[in-house]
Amino acid sequence: MCSTRSRSGGSRDVRLQGFPDRTSLEEAQRWLDDLPVNRDEEEIGVDACVGRLAAAPVDAPSDLPPVARAAEDGYAIRAEDSLGASAYGPQLLVLAPPAATLAQGSAVLVAAGEALPEGADAVVPFEAAQASGTEVEVTSAVAVGTGVDQPGRLVRAGTRLFGPARPLRPQDAALLAALGMQQVRVARRPRVRLVVAGPKRCGASPSPADASGLLLRALLGRDGCAVDAVPTRADLRDAVLEAAAEPAPDLLLVVGRTGTGADDEAPLAVARAGELAVHGIALRPGGTAGLGRIGAAPVALLPGDPLACMFAYELVAGRLVRRLAGGDPGLPHAVLEAEASRKIVSTVGFVEACQVRLVDGRAEPVGSAEAGGLASAARADGFVLVPAGSEGYAPGSRVTVRLYG
Amino acid sequence: MCSTRSRSGGSRDVRLQGFPDRTSLEEAQRWLDDLPVNRDEEEIGVDACVGRLAAAPVDAPSDLPPVARAAEDGYAIRAEDSLGASAYGPQLLVLAPPAATLAQGSAVLVAAGEALPEGADAVVPFEAAQASGTEVEVTSAVAVGTGVDQPGRLVRAGTRLFGPARPLRPQDAALLAALGMQQVRVARRPRVRLVVAGPKRCGASPSPADASGLLLRALLGRDGCAVDAVPTRADLRDAVLEAAAEPAPDLLLVVGRTGTGADDEAPLAVARAGELAVHGIALRPGGTAGLGRIGAAPVALLPGDPLACMFAYELVAGRLVRRLAGGDPGLPHAVLEAEASRKIVSTVGFVEACQVRLVDGRAEPVGSAEAGGLASAARADGFVLVPAGSEGYAPGSRVTVRLYG
Repeated sequence: MCSTRSRSGGSRDVRLQGFPDRTSLEEAQRWLDDLPVNRDEEEIGVDACVGRLAAAPVDAPSDLPPVARAAEDGYAIRAEDSLGASAYGPQLLVLAPPAATLAQGSAVLVAAGEALPEGADAVVPFEAAQASGTEVEVTSAVAVGTGVDQPGRLVRAGTRLFGPARPLRPQDAALLAALGMQQVRVARRPRVRLVVAGPKRCGASPSPADASGLLLRALLGRDGCAVDAVPTRADLRDAVLEAAAEPAPDLLLVVGRTGTGADDEAPLAVARAGELAVHGIALRPGGTAGLGRIGAAPVALLPGDPLACMFAYELVAGRLVRRLAGGDPGLPHAVLEAEASRKIVSTVGFVEACQVRLVDGRAEPVGSAEAGGLASAARADGFVLVPAGSEGYAPGSRVTVRLYG
Repeated sequence: MCSTRSRSGGSRDVRLQGFPDRTSLEEAQRWLDDLPVNRDEEEIGVDACVGRLAAAPVDAPSDLPPVARAAEDGYAIRAEDSLGASAYGPQLLVLAPPAATLAQGSAVLVAAGEALPEGADAVVPFEAAQASGTEVEVTSAVAVGTGVDQPGRLVRAGTRLFGPARPLRPQDAALLAALGMQQVRVARRPRVRLVVAGPKRCGASPSPADASGLLLRALLGRDGCAVDAVPTRADLRDAVLEAAAEPAPDLLLVVGRTGTGADDEAPLAVARAGELAVHGIALRPGGTAGLGRIGAAPVALLPGDPLACMFAYELVAGRLVRRLAGGDPGLPHAVLEAEASRKIVSTVGFVEACQVRLVDGRAEPVGSAEAGGLASAARADGFVLVPAGSEGYAPGSRVTVRLYG
């Protein structure tokens, strides 16, 4: 059980004391969601745009095809030259080499997709036109436009191709390329600076915060960020000030040293360098996370424990990242409704992320937020969020599973 | 309508003739699925493994934590030194600086996650231990193991962490890092060589095959390939031979010039350089695709039209790529069952991919395989595959939508 409070600033020193109360997840999210974001744009090559978000709706700059093209393989002709042609009375045309213009009374071989020469207004398929030496025998009269993709048949100039709401896909990039576009304006990648502040001592074993740094880089990559790592320092405040320096990043993330231990200096480092608005969130795992600001840079403090770091990122800091990237701030995971096969236990007062596996289409809890940690998340297919007011779900309840990967 | 045939080799020259018959999609897939693949492995850094497939099941190399660690913030002590301690009769211990070994009668400040010094076997939380000058007052007796994460509590050495069946996720990488692993064996990226053989002439407009090349690179990237582009040549066969040269790629893709036009020389180039096993598949769009082999290298011919290229890749060539990458050869798209809001029309004799948008949860066809092409795919949310024996779906039918992106 935990008392949540109206956000009253996070400048209390919780070291060697513990959290007297915690900010609710909703309030922490609101603080971040209320930050103004500078949605910069950049122009990039169409060949690199897949996965990026268009900065503005994209309209077709020209017709597609831009010029009349052969819709099928055959001979391009002037339709009037086929007048009266039949199997019994073929019209004989001169087989001309490819040229910019098609002379009257001649035919030129074209492949589907090829631009028609000036003057040509129809394509006769091989079934109705056979070459023989320097002549082409046309055995069927064709109307103007037969076998021709007129300019704009696929897309008219000015047509809205797509809005800025979703990441560009391979076929979107191909369409832009087919329209002759070489550049496209997209939302600039959020610039994140990352300070991994591992514990001062953890023996010969690897630091959990290093694992968190690695995990975080993968999540930031998924969310489209450019990440710049700033090495930590003997005095964490020096590293934090360096990471917040001009040009200010869109977000500064400090991983580790967020708890109640003697060396948990990250909250104090932020409070001294700027403003610590939130420290301690009613979230499990991830409850030692914090939020603040140094100069123009928003700061999120993420726990050093990897699983806690993951959820503090996904549910709190990631919201700002995804908004900066021009997307939806909500969780990016695909969602599945399933029945809980066993009881899902959660602590009242905390929003809790419970790891679940899917077994025969049912959600089975894997470990708990406390026991198993990262190892449960590696065995899980997804997680269930239990609201702060609930102590969990009974077996057979319908739950919403957010799927990993 | 189209007649399919038992695969009889693809060495017929269909140029200026058309396809007399086509290989069924199933048979083309079977030809590819029957190719032996060399599933090579490679060792990569744990910090680069997210999205890759483990080459073999991964077992924990050691316990996690590897050594006893503080489970919470507090003072590490020898439990026996707290014997008899109470609020009224505290035990006074010497506040020692961090050291490899904890002397009897002393206490050292530890943060959650920190390794305990040799000799310490309990952690007293701040509620039961307060420092004062050079002493720590312990006001509660603790048992051996209190506040300690024993070695192996999260993961025991030898525990199976994950099999090779799914791509590694951020938390998987973090778990490997937390276990002290720096390298992991993963399936080697399939090595694909790509020849984009645009039409010889298409006026001033961009070549559709260039758009296809761009699209294909995005799909190959999604499927985890390393792509090596080989420039085309005046004689396409030279480019194809170069692209198939030793060390042979896992797959050679030739994009464009697969149809029935005069300059559609890709099938002939393959037939002359090696074996053309399939040319012409009962698939729309994508029906001019082909399959073959040059020396040790499997070859797939993909149409130059971007949408046709996309489906020939997804339904045919991509199967081999995904198998090479160590994954499931099937389509990678998420799937949704929905009701068709309008009639979905398809040509009997061809497996047809129909573009659909989701409107109020129902699948609404966008254009047709013939009309709209790439522009429909850019407007669509996914596609519905109509089997060769069906002429489509009536409004209100339940259809399976494969979702883009």
